[in-house]
Amino acid sequence: MGKDISQAVIRRMPRYYRYLGDLLEQGVERISSNELSAKMKVTASQIRQDLNNFGGFGQQGYGYNVQFLYSEIGKILGLEQQHNVIVIGAGNLGQALANYPKFKKLGFVIIGLFDINPKLKGETQSGVPVMMLEGLEDFAARHEIDIAALTMPKNNADKIANRLVNLGIHAIWNFAHVDLDLVDKDVVVENVHLSDSLMQLSYNMNMHQNAGEIKDFNGKRVERL
Amino acid sequence: MGKDISQAVIRRMPRYYRYLGDLLEQGVERISSNELSAKMKVTASQIRQDLNNFGGFGQQGYGYNVQFLYSEIGKILGLEQQHNVIVIGAGNLGQALANYPKFKKLGFVIIGLFDINPKLKGETQSGVPVMMLEGLEDFAARHEIDIAALTMPKNNADKIANRLVNLGIHAIWNFAHVDLDLVDKDVVVENVHLSDSLMQLSYNMNMHQNAGEIKDFNGKRVERL
Repeated sequence: MGKDISQAVIRRMPRYYRYLGDLLEQGVERISSNELSAKMKVTASQIRQDLNNFGGFGQQGYGYNVQFLYSEIGKILGLEQQHNVIVIGAGNLGQALANYPKFKKLGFVIIGLFDINPKLKGETQSGVPVMMLEGLEDFAARHEIDIAALTMPKNNADKIANRLVNLGIHAIWNFAHVDLDLVDKDVVVENVHLSDSLMQLSYNMNMHQNAGEIKDFNGKRVERL
Repeated sequence: MGKDISQAVIRRMPRYYRYLGDLLEQGVERISSNELSAKMKVTASQIRQDLNNFGGFGQQGYGYNVQFLYSEIGKILGLEQQHNVIVIGAGNLGQALANYPKFKKLGFVIIGLFDINPKLKGETQSGVPVMMLEGLEDFAARHEIDIAALTMPKNNADKIANRLVNLGIHAIWNFAHVDLDLVDKDVVVENVHLSDSLMQLSYNMNMHQNAGEIKDFNGKRVERL
């Protein structure tokens, strides 16, 4: 399932999941692709196409069962299982991740923060202990770790990432401002490059001022409302 | 210039800028698209195509002049001018943004943090003062603000975003886990949805385990090395 699905489609799935979760909270039981389209500001045909990648889930004349679609997308995203996460770097960003309650709700449980600053040793963030990086191997031997988030400066990122990979951690959530160069290429990396995002905003500001155009969620130009 | 350029191309430009900056630091004066391709792990033809959107910059048989290309891409990204940034939400994430030295180097200068927690009043982060949100209008009257970063919880995001828009701020860097619903649609928004990113990682972990496949930077499937 899902072998030939583009990353563009995958990028939209969490957004569907989020909207469906909101609908569930509001007690909505079913929704047509047109209604979902109006809410999410993507075309109904885009929604149908995206979901057809995974087998559809809709029923002609009925629309989508919100609870069913929500849990199916959850399965597609791998959310039916818990993921244990460690965070390397217990600075502001690492702390922000540890203190963000949403992750745990989605099954991403931060089980440890690591840093090299001895002043942080013994601290906790939302109950998550800050440990010294030298204890990483020992911790990894005693805990199952699914994902490592890297929030430390870029100059150490490759070295630490490869240390994690050698410990059998095959998923890295990389906030360091560098594309990782990994010994084992068989690792899944998701980058959050904040500077890149800010530069993209800056580009769009300039273009927007020049052209006065509006882009929708998918970056397509849309008519001015 | 750049009117018809897709967001996919734009997303790659900051990465070119980053690599060219590294090359400059290493004293590299010129580079062929093949060498740049090997470094960045995108095809040389992709690089040429991307840059041709903006007029090319390369010279047959010479390659690219690193300094020239770096500064041209900087201009494309709007980095030749300073952008004043305020951050709404002085929690961990807001503090992380204020303390990240890279942004200032790129010309994004954080000039104020705002929060509603009176305990934070009068604090500073890397010299940036934390102010109370009630003083936002007053601050906006006395300072030029180009970009507002939203790092507070999603339930207030729409309200505050619209307050910012009414103050004339037309670029929002949104970390709140919601797609903003803005009164004035003529606003540039760049979203950083951390949960979405984590779910995408989770999806790719599952698919990867199932299929054993590797994706390159652009999400294209590549041969195992």
